[in-house]
Amino acid sequence: MLDSIPSFARLVAELAKFPGVGKKTATRLAFSLLSRPESDAEALAGAILELHRKIGFCSICYHMTENDPCPICTDPTRDERLLCVVEQPQDLLAIERSRSFRGRYHVLQGVLSPLDGIGPDDLRFDELLARLDGGVEEVLVATNFTVEGDATALYVADLVRAKGVRVTRLAHGIPTGSDLEFIDDTTVHRAVENRREL
Amino acid sequence: MLDSIPSFARLVAELAKFPGVGKKTATRLAFSLLSRPESDAEALAGAILELHRKIGFCSICYHMTENDPCPICTDPTRDERLLCVVEQPQDLLAIERSRSFRGRYHVLQGVLSPLDGIGPDDLRFDELLARLDGGVEEVLVATNFTVEGDATALYVADLVRAKGVRVTRLAHGIPTGSDLEFIDDTTVHRAVENRREL
Repeated sequence: MLDSIPSFARLVAELAKFPGVGKKTATRLAFSLLSRPESDAEALAGAILELHRKIGFCSICYHMTENDPCPICTDPTRDERLLCVVEQPQDLLAIERSRSFRGRYHVLQGVLSPLDGIGPDDLRFDELLARLDGGVEEVLVATNFTVEGDATALYVADLVRAKGVRVTRLAHGIPTGSDLEFIDDTTVHRAVENRREL
Repeated sequence: MLDSIPSFARLVAELAKFPGVGKKTATRLAFSLLSRPESDAEALAGAILELHRKIGFCSICYHMTENDPCPICTDPTRDERLLCVVEQPQDLLAIERSRSFRGRYHVLQGVLSPLDGIGPDDLRFDELLARLDGGVEEVLVATNFTVEGDATALYVADLVRAKGVRVTRLAHGIPTGSDLEFIDDTTVHRAVENRREL
């Protein structure tokens, strides 16, 4: 039905490339854009074009940034002795939102995933090791609690310990606001194992 | 946290203007765009910019189109005696997908909604009446089955009947594949009222 309106069909096809966006949602988004002023469409297109042009990766921590090195790496109030290792910029942002960490970061830009052909050479391990010589006293591994994230955490721990630096990992347990009844067995198991004094 | 990456924050803000897209979804979309090749971003931006430039409204039926008059209005195989009145281009597309209608359309570009300040002068009623002189024998009102859609249908029916043209409306009833148990009372009530011979 959209064949007779190729420019609309093209936008729907482009929007449907987003993960989790099907043809129906893409059509709804395109209609929304068409019903709003042209200036809205221009602002969105401008922001999209600017994305790759302005954003690169920090040459120290590999977080995304407009200026290299990034504001976190150049912030003198941050503790250089603490280094938090994450998979992706998204994970770094989640920890920053929690306002619980005042050290620096290292973004691996992925996880070890042999099935997807991602090995140690594809991630930022060499760059991590090079940073350990600069007075780092603790590496907090904040990879996700998935099979790949766990494997990557063990790999990082081996590398870092070999350099004589302390390695820690985010606590594994029951999240805030949840009912024990509905938490998966592995999480409850680990929460019991890692119980602490009150 | 995104303040330090203004171009990313700007894209998230633009994406969050879509209906049903919150800040979290917008961030996910922006990250997806950043992780894909720049050519993808350029294609999307191009499609967005093209939208308003290429698409206008057909001066006969007020459906969206790249060429005026639109392909439906110029299609000689369509029955000129049948005219289907819809609220929006989306509704026209839904009827076209059903492959049940081979007449022409008239898009009102909205519904009567006094609470939103939308009265008869804001919709394409005059243009509809002008078309009735061209040999139209039946007007099928396909406004939505909402309070506003019902009111608009009654308004259209009065206008069209005054011109001596037959007016029909889409059947109201139980949709395909649904359990009576879960259908709202009004729909069941109307389905019983409008029962037909088997």
